[in-house]
Amino acid sequence: MAEHFAITAKNRVRRYPQRARYDKATVYAILDAAWVAHVAFVKDGAPRIIPTLFARRDDTLLLHGAPASGLLRHIGAGGEVAVSVALVDGLVVAKRVADLAVNYRSVVVFGRGRLLEDEAEKRAALHHLTERLVPGHWGASNEPTASDLRAVAVAEIAIESASAKVRTALPDDRAEARTLPVWAGFVPIQQVMGQPVTADYAADRDPPRPLLEMIARWASPPPTVKE
Amino acid sequence: MAEHFAITAKNRVRRYPQRARYDKATVYAILDAAWVAHVAFVKDGAPRIIPTLFARRDDTLLLHGAPASGLLRHIGAGGEVAVSVALVDGLVVAKRVADLAVNYRSVVVFGRGRLLEDEAEKRAALHHLTERLVPGHWGASNEPTASDLRAVAVAEIAIESASAKVRTALPDDRAEARTLPVWAGFVPIQQVMGQPVTADYAADRDPPRPLLEMIARWASPPPTVKE
Repeated sequence: MAEHFAITAKNRVRRYPQRARYDKATVYAILDAAWVAHVAFVKDGAPRIIPTLFARRDDTLLLHGAPASGLLRHIGAGGEVAVSVALVDGLVVAKRVADLAVNYRSVVVFGRGRLLEDEAEKRAALHHLTERLVPGHWGASNEPTASDLRAVAVAEIAIESASAKVRTALPDDRAEARTLPVWAGFVPIQQVMGQPVTADYAADRDPPRPLLEMIARWASPPPTVKE
Repeated sequence: MAEHFAITAKNRVRRYPQRARYDKATVYAILDAAWVAHVAFVKDGAPRIIPTLFARRDDTLLLHGAPASGLLRHIGAGGEVAVSVALVDGLVVAKRVADLAVNYRSVVVFGRGRLLEDEAEKRAALHHLTERLVPGHWGASNEPTASDLRAVAVAEIAIESASAKVRTALPDDRAEARTLPVWAGFVPIQQVMGQPVTADYAADRDPPRPLLEMIARWASPPPTVKE
């Protein structure tokens, strides 16, 4: 499969095209930096939107929910979805308020999916989702039972088209604005994880090492992406 | 106007209804804690989704963009939108992976809007958006010019229907799961602002005090919302 998404009427970034990215490496790095995506779909001609946990696996997105969920039924019926992830990295304070901005990394994916029906397929997808959310937590003793698997719907959405948009720079006031008597600069914004709190009923007081490693990564500044 | 949104087929929370909130105080507090919303709309029968800066003002949402933007033209033509905000507050690690969850505060708004055409209306809306993003930054010397105002489209969306969903609790493993030999607990997640960096061309080295106060607030844990 190509290393870039084809640019079409659907995924082409029209506003600030210099910030657009169509290479899979950038699109997938942004998807992999987020846990929650927003999924849009059409129901009876009207827009619907749902925030949901998700994980990318190869050229697909995995998500799960109640079998009665309108979104999962829509996907099961072959309906199209548009999925977005947006990470805010900072406030960009230009001298002129007309030039205010935020730094961000965002992705929009278009695709259609299917519900996983096979028990082994569902188990593998949930394993992948769990590993993404809580590394090292999945194990024989706490795996979903056959009854758990029947109670959940798992969807796999093929990433048919996608684009990313990235803004990373400092403010860039035009020359004549630089002497305005107001402040200009940048305020970094970051999502961080705090120290884990062990449940009072848990005999094992030590969080799994892969979870601790993930928490440490999330306490560090995000990797810089070149604009 | 009522202090609760009417529960209809559109905004009713079907999954985990005990987490639903329809009171304006909760819905608006969540909207006011976020900067970026995802807006879904329908174009040629297919779903579209766009992340955007926004601000609530009374019973409306304000957003701005390029006049040629598909979303803003859709709003200008009277089209419906579904707007979502989702804030992730923590990872909830239950003993059983089938019970993993995140704590979150989310809102979905349904509405239709209009483009502000009047210059004074546009200016007031951009002032509100700026104050929300960079408190204390708007001032006479850096206000948008008439030409700036012509170059931007500003939409006001009436919040016709909305609901919130909140999960705040620690893991709550069923009794028979509590002895499984794996860890259980909670990992807090928070969006924080770092120290402001002044642009090298800015003679005024001191960020505005209201901005510093906002940064300080964002470095504190989010207020607890009772589930």
